[in-house]
Amino acid sequence: MTECKTLLEIIEELSEDAEKVDNSQLEIVEQLITKAKRVFITGAGRSGFAARAFANRLMHLGIDSHFVGEPTTPSIRRGDLLIIGSGSGKTESLVTMAKKAKKEDAELATITINPNNEIGSIADAYIKIPGISSRDTATEKASSIQPNGSSFEQLSWLIYDSIIVDLIRITQQTQEEIDFRHANME
Amino acid sequence: MTECKTLLEIIEELSEDAEKVDNSQLEIVEQLITKAKRVFITGAGRSGFAARAFANRLMHLGIDSHFVGEPTTPSIRRGDLLIIGSGSGKTESLVTMAKKAKKEDAELATITINPNNEIGSIADAYIKIPGISSRDTATEKASSIQPNGSSFEQLSWLIYDSIIVDLIRITQQTQEEIDFRHANME
Amino acid sequence: MTECKTLLEIIEELSEDAEKVDNSQLEIVEQLITKAKRVFITGAGRSGFAARAFANRLMHLGIDSHFVGEPTTPSIRRGDLLIIGSGSGKTESLVTMAKKAKKEDAELATITINPNNEIGSIADAYIKIPGISSRDTATEKASSIQPNGSSFEQLSWLIYDSIIVDLIRITQQTQEEIDFRHANME
Amino acid sequence: MTECKTLLEIIEELSEDAEKVDNSQLEIVEQLITKAKRVFITGAGRSGFAARAFANRLMHLGIDSHFVGEPTTPSIRRGDLLIIGSGSGKTESLVTMAKKAKKEDAELATITINPNNEIGSIADAYIKIPGISSRDTATEKASSIQPNGSSFEQLSWLIYDSIIVDLIRITQQTQEEIDFRHANME
Repeated sequence: MTECKTLLEIIEELSEDAEKVDNSQLEIVEQLITKAKRVFITGAGRSGFAARAFANRLMHLGIDSHFVGEPTTPSIRRGDLLIIGSGSGKTESLVTMAKKAKKEDAELATITINPNNEIGSIADAYIKIPGISSRDTATEKASSIQPNGSSFEQLSWLIYDSIIVDLIRITQQTQEEIDFRHANME
Repeated sequence: MTECKTLLEIIEELSEDAEKVDNSQLEIVEQLITKAKRVFITGAGRSGFAARAFANRLMHLGIDSHFVGEPTTPSIRRGDLLIIGSGSGKTESLVTMAKKAKKEDAELATITINPNNEIGSIADAYIKIPGISSRDTATEKASSIQPNGSSFEQLSWLIYDSIIVDLIRITQQTQEEIDFRHANME
Repeated sequence: MTECKTLLEIIEELSEDAEKVDNSQLEIVEQLITKAKRVFITGAGRSGFAARAFANRLMHLGIDSHFVGEPTTPSIRRGDLLIIGSGSGKTESLVTMAKKAKKEDAELATITINPNNEIGSIADAYIKIPGISSRDTATEKASSIQPNGSSFEQLSWLIYDSIIVDLIRITQQTQEEIDFRHANME
Repeated sequence: MTECKTLLEIIEELSEDAEKVDNSQLEIVEQLITKAKRVFITGAGRSGFAARAFANRLMHLGIDSHFVGEPTTPSIRRGDLLIIGSGSGKTESLVTMAKKAKKEDAELATITINPNNEIGSIADAYIKIPGISSRDTATEKASSIQPNGSSFEQLSWLIYDSIIVDLIRITQQTQEEIDFRHANME
């Protein structure tokens, strides 16, 4: 058996980045989720796949959740929460959604490298992740053995899943309850 | 202005096929929908895109509907209804879903050219459409200026939408209520 | 057997609307497709499902086609064609895509009720369909037994498929060639 | 700033699991990818979202890749490779795809917890990951602070991305080439 050098390096990077994430930011998002009538999730490209995995787990917890753009996703309204995963914080289609959600008086949270950009600056809460977005170039502040965006996308998935672990504790769900809601026609 | 000859021929074919569809079969499916706790929709390929459009409209009517395989689609259970659009009636992945739904004691309806095939033969209700599925070859019984499957896919979309018109009447929805539920972050 | 009154009314409406579509507009779009290096397709909501069915058939014809937002859709560039299905012609996320495609020097075509709106006004070609978009209200000019948007969405699907029939003739494809490219793992 | 205890625990688990993955298995899959005419990717639920992120990056590298079930995914044939991400290794819809791919004489690789199950046992190559699948229950051999399946899904994403880093090196891609192919209409 030979060691997966690249894989271990990626995880080491994630570990270092994770230490710079502030748990109090996660707790605020967790409160917004438990308070929300419905939770809408979005993200473009690979950030969107991580976000879909989060929407799926929220459904497993019995939370009324929807990924934006799916066939049965309804309109967002006051009392709902929109969570946007966007490294750059300025993807145009997502900025449009952020503005529309705020116009409807919904709550807005975002996971981003750049909380000062368009989305973060109108959000009610944000989780700041270190990294280089797929729309930026590597700087002295941040470099990676991976293509731009990858470490953000990975860490956003892991943060979503750590929020799930916290929410299971908060809402006192059992593995049986989670399994019961899991898709059963695959 | 020149006439769209191909388009008009396609519609003429649809019109002839539509005359062979039995409305009492639609009414049974409409009753299953109004009775169901939740409605799950599925279909592969182009039949699946028609089916997604139907799932979307059911949501507009306030019906708890889900397209199978989407991020927030939960498990199907007793009291739920699964609707499968399948021209051939024997697409393997859909046969699997049909069996799993029946095993959970959910109701099963299908729109198909071949109600005698695997899916139709275990369904609680079916709507039979004339045509050639993408898995069959043209016979004397049916021919089309279009590639195999196309007329089925089109007519399934139109039947879904005629069910919607009927359900709007039955559930007495207004255009305002439908618009209110329409996705608003596009 | 009882007649499907609603279904036949829908088809009658489609037939009347189809007579108002100008075939020379379809021919221009067909030329853009055969000339294009790659064809990108998009549309929101139900118009997007009709557009996906079109992207699927273009692939069956051996045309390098991509639906915008799918996991393996690449960047659009000069020499490529973007086709947008949008009844209103002003859906914000689609307007953004139209502008980005033009900025990359790609060709732009649209199927729309309103060719004078944002998308149509920067398009290289358009196909005008009569109807009421899901963002408009019924006027004296157009009314339908269906919810707003439905007849546009249906007719856009049928126009796409009539373009496919024309392209099969133009590119001299056989049913066997089409079947060979059809997804075979379902 | 407070530490993200749950997040760090998740990453610690991933790190321990990653040490049990055999790099020679990754290298074999990397060779299959570089040799393949086209690469097809699939996975159900959250494993499928991780797999879509992989399909996306393969496209960025200029590899002809397709996620199964997308609108423009063609038929799989001899010379192509199918990669299935499945923790359990026995999800029915995926077993069907595995068999169909082998019947077409395509190559088959899988990332799984259970290489002895249906998919792994007919695969040409597999990458074994430690963990508990969403279809299993925790055993003495493996336990997690997370719901079943989560650590597999996370680690499959990270393994996919480490394969990407290796493939960038092997195919000598630059960040500019990767950026050039990145979707540009979002």
